[in-house]
Amino acid sequence: MLRGLPEQWITATEGPGTWSPYVVIGHLIHGEKTDWVPRLMIILDHGPDHPFEPFDRKAQFRDSQGKSMSELLDEFSQRRADNLERLRTFDLQPAQLELTGTHPALGRVTLRQLLATWTASDLGHILQVSRVMAKRYKDDVGPWAQYLSVMR
Amino acid sequence: MLRGLPEQWITATEGPGTWSPYVVIGHLIHGEKTDWVPRLMIILDHGPDHPFEPFDRKAQFRDSQGKSMSELLDEFSQRRADNLERLRTFDLQPAQLELTGTHPALGRVTLRQLLATWTASDLGHILQVSRVMAKRYKDDVGPWAQYLSVMR
Repeated sequence: MLRGLPEQWITATEGPGTWSPYVVIGHLIHGEKTDWVPRLMIILDHGPDHPFEPFDRKAQFRDSQGKSMSELLDEFSQRRADNLERLRTFDLQPAQLELTGTHPALGRVTLRQLLATWTASDLGHILQVSRVMAKRYKDDVGPWAQYLSVMR
Repeated sequence: MLRGLPEQWITATEGPGTWSPYVVIGHLIHGEKTDWVPRLMIILDHGPDHPFEPFDRKAQFRDSQGKSMSELLDEFSQRRADNLERLRTFDLQPAQLELTGTHPALGRVTLRQLLATWTASDLGHILQVSRVMAKRYKDDVGPWAQYLSVMR
């Protein structure tokens, strides 16, 4: 969806302090590195006594520096594939989905909730990127804007 | 994004009267058949004196009957490819983008606005499908729901 798009698309935002598609992909990479599978392993290895590391929501502003969108997409794609392979290797059984961990802010969470959040987070970011890119067309669509709920 | 998903994903809605991903794809097919390129040709061939046909927002409930999601995705993909090929064949020049047509409800619109709406509509439907699927996870994500704006 984002591969090969012109610069104006991937750097578009919804205003100051909001994230462009480029920033979102950096955020997703940081999630692959520090969030989903690393937290899953903390649950499996330590359970609730070992709280997760807090997630750095600004890491991508540092880590993406100097990288092209194409490089970020390659990195995300590779890290995601590796993590899904690791997930398959764990061969999680139903009882393990109820194992718990401790989120630094949210408290007790289950492995099942962690995996559901991984998926829901993906969908939320697809939604976000679509919204950011659609809004660029707010003026361009003329009178059709009133039929497009995304423009409101 | 939607290929090969289990039935529960593609038939999920946001409540009575809202559209599932399956319904959205049927709607997109109807757009390829009757909206974007046909309206573009009305502008090129007749200009504003020949209003567009009103778009049938319920056509997919009739036309998708008996078809699997996989069949709908194949049909959409083929029709879209054909329409993009036709669009290239027109070899539209900048001046032609300012040609006008008459929308049955919105009145005077330009060819440029029609093309922008085609793209914005795609992005709006990607957003919609992501939101519908993410909301299925509202309970499953447990306390993480408060971090996921899509759940609100």
